[in-house]
Amino acid sequence: MILDKVNNPNDLKKLTLEELNSLSNEIRELIIKKVNTTGGHMGPNLGIVEATIAMHYVFNSPVDKIVFDVSHQCYPHKILTGRKEGFTNPEKYHVYTGYTAPEESNHDLFKVGHTSTSVSLATGVAKARDLKEEKGNVIALIGDGSLSGGEALEGLDNAAILGSNIIILVNDNEMSIAENYGGLYDNLKLLRDTNGQAECNFFKSLGFDYLYVEKGNDIEELIKAFEKVKDIDHPIVVHMHTEKGHGLDVAEQNKEAFHWILPGTLDKKDDSTAQVEVENYTSLTKKFIMDKAAEDKTVIAVNAGTPGVFGFTKDFREKLGKQYSDVGIAEEHAVAYSSALAKCGANPFFAVMSSFVQRTYDQMSQDLALNNSPITMLVYWGGLSGADATHLCSFDIPLISNIPNIVYLSPATKEECVAMLEYAYKQKERPVAIRIPNSELISTGVKDTTDYSILNKFKVESKGEKVAILGLGDFLGLANLVKDELKSKFGIDATVINPRFITGIDEELLEDLKQNHNVVVTLENGQLDGGFGEKIARFYGNSDVKVLNFGGKKEFSDRVPLDELYERYRLTKELIVEDISKLL
Amino acid sequence: MILDKVNNPNDLKKLTLEELNSLSNEIRELIIKKVNTTGGHMGPNLGIVEATIAMHYVFNSPVDKIVFDVSHQCYPHKILTGRKEGFTNPEKYHVYTGYTAPEESNHDLFKVGHTSTSVSLATGVAKARDLKEEKGNVIALIGDGSLSGGEALEGLDNAAILGSNIIILVNDNEMSIAENYGGLYDNLKLLRDTNGQAECNFFKSLGFDYLYVEKGNDIEELIKAFEKVKDIDHPIVVHMHTEKGHGLDVAEQNKEAFHWILPGTLDKKDDSTAQVEVENYTSLTKKFIMDKAAEDKTVIAVNAGTPGVFGFTKDFREKLGKQYSDVGIAEEHAVAYSSALAKCGANPFFAVMSSFVQRTYDQMSQDLALNNSPITMLVYWGGLSGADATHLCSFDIPLISNIPNIVYLSPATKEECVAMLEYAYKQKERPVAIRIPNSELISTGVKDTTDYSILNKFKVESKGEKVAILGLGDFLGLANLVKDELKSKFGIDATVINPRFITGIDEELLEDLKQNHNVVVTLENGQLDGGFGEKIARFYGNSDVKVLNFGGKKEFSDRVPLDELYERYRLTKELIVEDISKLL
Repeated sequence: MILDKVNNPNDLKKLTLEELNSLSNEIRELIIKKVNTTGGHMGPNLGIVEATIAMHYVFNSPVDKIVFDVSHQCYPHKILTGRKEGFTNPEKYHVYTGYTAPEESNHDLFKVGHTSTSVSLATGVAKARDLKEEKGNVIALIGDGSLSGGEALEGLDNAAILGSNIIILVNDNEMSIAENYGGLYDNLKLLRDTNGQAECNFFKSLGFDYLYVEKGNDIEELIKAFEKVKDIDHPIVVHMHTEKGHGLDVAEQNKEAFHWILPGTLDKKDDSTAQVEVENYTSLTKKFIMDKAAEDKTVIAVNAGTPGVFGFTKDFREKLGKQYSDVGIAEEHAVAYSSALAKCGANPFFAVMSSFVQRTYDQMSQDLALNNSPITMLVYWGGLSGADATHLCSFDIPLISNIPNIVYLSPATKEECVAMLEYAYKQKERPVAIRIPNSELISTGVKDTTDYSILNKFKVESKGEKVAILGLGDFLGLANLVKDELKSKFGIDATVINPRFITGIDEELLEDLKQNHNVVVTLENGQLDGGFGEKIARFYGNSDVKVLNFGGKKEFSDRVPLDELYERYRLTKELIVEDISKLL
Repeated sequence: MILDKVNNPNDLKKLTLEELNSLSNEIRELIIKKVNTTGGHMGPNLGIVEATIAMHYVFNSPVDKIVFDVSHQCYPHKILTGRKEGFTNPEKYHVYTGYTAPEESNHDLFKVGHTSTSVSLATGVAKARDLKEEKGNVIALIGDGSLSGGEALEGLDNAAILGSNIIILVNDNEMSIAENYGGLYDNLKLLRDTNGQAECNFFKSLGFDYLYVEKGNDIEELIKAFEKVKDIDHPIVVHMHTEKGHGLDVAEQNKEAFHWILPGTLDKKDDSTAQVEVENYTSLTKKFIMDKAAEDKTVIAVNAGTPGVFGFTKDFREKLGKQYSDVGIAEEHAVAYSSALAKCGANPFFAVMSSFVQRTYDQMSQDLALNNSPITMLVYWGGLSGADATHLCSFDIPLISNIPNIVYLSPATKEECVAMLEYAYKQKERPVAIRIPNSELISTGVKDTTDYSILNKFKVESKGEKVAILGLGDFLGLANLVKDELKSKFGIDATVINPRFITGIDEELLEDLKQNHNVVVTLENGQLDGGFGEKIARFYGNSDVKVLNFGGKKEFSDRVPLDELYERYRLTKELIVEDISKLL
């Protein structure tokens, strides 16, 4: 294997073109095998193998600095920068993260996982170089899909006037996770179709010098291009046309499905992209939207470039037609757009992942909440998880629930979820967000007839005494477990409460609890700081009722298994009861 | 007066061109007089008089819908849409807000005050029209300065592919609040210089049709242009070249100073733009940066288009030269850029207003905090205020302090502010934010020698018993007043504590307080929900100590005088002591 001779980027420079090409095949095979075993980003990494080899052949990392956007395409880079054992040795498959990680290597500058950040970061890297009067190339590697994000566009506008070396490497594979949306993409197509010669050029209009590389999976062509721009004294965009999933037939043909795959996807005999639909909170929400859209032409499903998360499949998109808006990676736009849609009488459902809703605070505050626009916002995957530090979903409650006017709901069952969707759809008073549970579907079989327009009414699930346990959303189950444990260990019949409303407290009920409860316990699936429980603690601050808040610690946990997090945060029935027992 | 005949936009349509021109003079005079009396946005409104008249002459508001960006240029619009008495009658000068306000008129669609929102909002308005199969023009009026914001850029990318009528009216006065920064602005200049004929056109590259109007303060030219694009069936940008401050010599010549003026500015005999520098927290912070920049070439002052707020005057900018970055309205870029600067060994000071830091949550979380980049972030104007609902500064603590890794400091005195600046500048461990007080300077005259690298150590200002009062930042003064009141009314010697750290609690000290304190009171200048006090309530939840949290309610207060807010939130020494007394 050629790779045996390559332990760092310098080793590349001694290879012939033929060897480099062989190396690309070796790397591709490793990635396919590893990703099919562990799951991960397949298409983005297969598409960038040749460019990564050419980059490290021409530039001198870490003196020259490469900033990866999202960094979900950094596997070939990791293989070439001293971390190949994470791909050659199945026992070490989990040693390295799926994103750039400075703690792993000095070839990685930033911990990155969210999109559209590379150009701004690279501009800072380049400016620091200039202030320190140092030399070297600074390269931002960004995919076409990431270009539509506000941070990327702000970054391009600023990078263009840096006045010194910065190379924006646009990896144009004609895809975001799903298809691209936005006027920008017509311009990229025009540039591809004219071999980069069209006068009307988005990058040039921002002031960049520009170079087009049609064969973005051809090492020789890429080396030529990179050698041309190396040590350039001004900002330039190198626009290279690559193929997502390059070299793996099924990935080339199913670009969206093979963006990120589950373990074993390639081993499935039948069509690996087809998925059996089991009813869960996501599928029932999707069905709800489809049914409403069929009967109400003003219903519109909005999302920002991650339709797969919400089950917005091709079938769904085609069925909705004009009633479907994927705005590309552009959450800020998505919120303002949805707000205006609702204000003008349409019925938008804006679906967003907890981790990515972070990109749009000001729009939720100003465009949406201040205007009390009656949109339905669907927040997915909210909760503690064993995810990478870059993709935690534990901050949405602090983020959303402290904005005035927004009503943020947390269903605990299928029936509540449906009732909340109905309420959010029908009401015209305010923005309503629903935290769609990421857990197994729980059904009571009994229709929820709650009138959610009466805000902040908590539901007493079972009436007891001494201890009251507030289990928010999918933590209602844990609350019931705690109740049982209290009964069996201490003979206490605890009260269990299902708050349902995250954004306000049921003062009447909490006041009532004082009569025959000494301890109130809150359980929330997310970060405690700034969250739900603290508001309960504040409410009881002037009383004799003791309050215990359970939830996540303020930290960026990084791939910590969920069970371990639950132990760390004392989120098991045993530990919770242990803490309660100290107050009995 | 022609204006006597104009009560709504329809009345305009009966006027001759000559009358329209006279009307523009009348409106200009009214604005100059009113703004000089009450203070407000002068330049933006003077520049848009003609375009507003022409818009309302050609289009049919409110059937045709106009969305204003920032809406600080809506005074002529208010005058023409039934609200002229707010400008003709000094007694009614304060009746209408300085921004669009749907509660005032159906010609105003959204409550707006933050920048860069109009294109996204207008796209939603237009899409709602299409879903409802209605007709009518949708117009977004956006200034050149606002174009650089991520939300505006995301919006343009999406508006361009709407496939139906939307008119983006770019009001190019060659200025943001201060000068523009970004590659985009070179393209606008090229378009102006070529009378809109240059092939390399930012708007066309996004897919827009395009029309240039050189004489943006000429009603006749504007009417012609608007008539051309009225009822167009696809997205178009009308790029009009206007003059900020048009028709008022001193405003034309001092565009930045006359963007927004204080009452009576025009009546000053001497150079009205010169300001006497009294020492305050802003001036001492500015001086600190200048001194450091002089001795350390890696120091760089970063801000996003609002240099005046921080005292970053022309003199300051010129002195700093390459060590000054105004990134334009682009807070997301500013944070990522600063993070990278710090990560690569430079020393950025990123200055931002509390209200506008809202535009950059994800970057603070992902680009900055997750990477632990040692920037110094300076947050100005944080606190409760009588501001418009669009410009409240009460959310920065919930926003920033619940992000892991960031250390957010709140100085109570000049000496603490300086010591914190020194600490933030020198340390290399983490992002440090400082909430620069907006209050009068308080000096102890004694150097603060605290080692702030020892995190979360609160300072006991005076040791007492029974009641402990935690006065955060500029509310330390209020804490002392409460102490005095408790002494005089109840003979209690309360403990006063200056927390200084917003982002963590001094568990040891709080534990100690339990020994001889029954009541702990927190005072914070900002919203309670998600803020500092709730964390103290959570800490004491399992103890016998009673906690009272004082701060702002979760609401968008709108131009409510500060004294009234203090009453509402029980933030006076009398009300606080009244609440404490119930627990004694």
